[in-house]
Amino acid sequence: MRSPPSRCGEPVGAIDTPALVIDLDALERNIARMADYAKQHRVRLRPHAKTHKCAHIAKLQVAAGAVGVCVQKTGEAQALADAGVTDIYISNEVVDAAKLERVAALAARVKLAIAVDSALGIDLLATALRAAGTTVDVFVEIDVGQGRCGVPATEAGTLAHRVVAKGLRFAGLQAYHGRAQHLRSAAERDQAVRHAVTLTRAAQASITSAGIACPLVSGAGTGTFVFEADSGVYGELQPGSYVFMDRDYAENETLVRAPVFEHALFVKSQVMSRGASHAVIDAGHKSHAIDSGLPRVWQRELDYANGGDEHGILRPRGAPLPMLGESVWLVPGHCDPTVNLHDSYVCVRGGLEHGVVEAIWAVDARGCVD
Amino acid sequence: MRSPPSRCGEPVGAIDTPALVIDLDALERNIARMADYAKQHRVRLRPHAKTHKCAHIAKLQVAAGAVGVCVQKTGEAQALADAGVTDIYISNEVVDAAKLERVAALAARVKLAIAVDSALGIDLLATALRAAGTTVDVFVEIDVGQGRCGVPATEAGTLAHRVVAKGLRFAGLQAYHGRAQHLRSAAERDQAVRHAVTLTRAAQASITSAGIACPLVSGAGTGTFVFEADSGVYGELQPGSYVFMDRDYAENETLVRAPVFEHALFVKSQVMSRGASHAVIDAGHKSHAIDSGLPRVWQRELDYANGGDEHGILRPRGAPLPMLGESVWLVPGHCDPTVNLHDSYVCVRGGLEHGVVEAIWAVDARGCVD
Repeated sequence: MRSPPSRCGEPVGAIDTPALVIDLDALERNIARMADYAKQHRVRLRPHAKTHKCAHIAKLQVAAGAVGVCVQKTGEAQALADAGVTDIYISNEVVDAAKLERVAALAARVKLAIAVDSALGIDLLATALRAAGTTVDVFVEIDVGQGRCGVPATEAGTLAHRVVAKGLRFAGLQAYHGRAQHLRSAAERDQAVRHAVTLTRAAQASITSAGIACPLVSGAGTGTFVFEADSGVYGELQPGSYVFMDRDYAENETLVRAPVFEHALFVKSQVMSRGASHAVIDAGHKSHAIDSGLPRVWQRELDYANGGDEHGILRPRGAPLPMLGESVWLVPGHCDPTVNLHDSYVCVRGGLEHGVVEAIWAVDARGCVD
Repeated sequence: MRSPPSRCGEPVGAIDTPALVIDLDALERNIARMADYAKQHRVRLRPHAKTHKCAHIAKLQVAAGAVGVCVQKTGEAQALADAGVTDIYISNEVVDAAKLERVAALAARVKLAIAVDSALGIDLLATALRAAGTTVDVFVEIDVGQGRCGVPATEAGTLAHRVVAKGLRFAGLQAYHGRAQHLRSAAERDQAVRHAVTLTRAAQASITSAGIACPLVSGAGTGTFVFEADSGVYGELQPGSYVFMDRDYAENETLVRAPVFEHALFVKSQVMSRGASHAVIDAGHKSHAIDSGLPRVWQRELDYANGGDEHGILRPRGAPLPMLGESVWLVPGHCDPTVNLHDSYVCVRGGLEHGVVEAIWAVDARGCVD
């Protein structure tokens, strides 16, 4: 790991910039609130670790009641397993023989699951597992409105049948609606999940018709999990972003019956140039992802404008411009790809103003796109 | 370094995906063409290493005639120095005392330069260098139209005077117009650089009035360097992207008198899900940056649509959809932040179709935002 931007015991003021900073108090409240929600609604929680890529956070989630975590990539699963995570679901397809060898080898070390959405994928997986002498749980992914991976609901039975015929363990349905997460109004998200539930029921029927039991439906994200939990169809929730809450998710209309999540992830930056009408900070889009829009300046009436890879440009919106050398905290637009830019988290206890660095955590699976 | 996606001697077909791949033949031609251009125009070449963050490429550039490289961050300078680069210019401001200690320490190991645009920055730099007993070349940055860092041209003399008064080595002007690089028409870029040249002359006059010589003007990028070279004012060019040529730069109107640069940087991906009317590849914006738009599919009539962090969605535009498991090559929209997502380059000799992996190079300064 590259030398981190801070050391334990330092005050927040001493953290080098730009730095990826966790407000530990907010993180712990977020983790507890989601865990409590899942318990109360008698649904399994399997948070998505693609968000944080951090074994330490995964273990906190499991300690709070999660059954394990999801990841999107084989490399993520390997990195988290190396760092001690023991129950991992690759909620995504792998159709490469060499990569499936890695999946099969990993299954010897941890409880592993994977998604499939093709006959070829099932066959290659079966071959790899047979060669390694290992087993995994296999979920059939259906397209519930995302228009990305997954077979049409009515084809789920055919694939489940093939899973079983190949001697694999059919674990249920992967039914995640990614696009629904960011629909701004609660009514739109509700509507999208109702559609997803209808399709999932059709998939369950298709599986039952094939004479196979469907043990579990897994899906949902931070924007919609309340609806999936209410549906009676989903048995496992996969939210990821709730641990950090980025600017984009915070712009969703909230539901009264949903738990409240706080911003727990920040980028600390510093003003390194100052004009008459703008200030320039040392954090650009090599420090935070901008795929879901620009970051928001935390608790200051300042507008952030894109200054390129290494700079951000601040203009006043009520508040005075910060001075040269001052710290400015950003709430990233999208937490997952922001985390992926950094090697470590600086974990602060006691708030961003007067807090102290309590821990440095590695972003264990940073860059694991493979 | 994380285990790279390939090994030397493997055919391109065996490279794991997603992978950051260099076409070595194209890279070498790009490096030679820019070096030849600079020689013919009797201007120094100091390529920007923020693009590639790779000591191996920096050394190839220097071997072809470059005087050294630029970087944007102290951490980048340290990483490249650690990997053997000996002449580095941090073409950006640093105003943090702890970071300037690192700058001053680095100056003991390599020939180092840095930009300033404030009295505070000059004073802090002088303090750090005095404490370390080292020296650096100091460039005063002026704002030549970018509206980001740099003082107004007429204030250059005041800052140059302060540099000298503090006992530092005044090396000249940093006069980079980032925004001009991506103006699509050559006429617009020409116009923007004419404006920059006018401001730079005013800055030179302001420095001369202060009784100080201005040894060098450094600036220019891949989109405009022909105009700066023609100006008679710029003595050093700082282009970065020409080594790789991303989709965005390739969309600029080209100039007949400018050297031709080829795409040399690609992301290799694989189709991991296949619907009736779309294919899904395993490369999303954790594999390539999308700040300058989406990637282009290389030599196939396919449209790439954003599929999120880990997926890309391909739709036919003339060509048939690729099959499950097939390789698809992408030309990134913006090379610099794309490189920053990966730990290593897979370097291929003999083309993307039948080539062989000749080398694996580390992205030495990946993640060095500090």
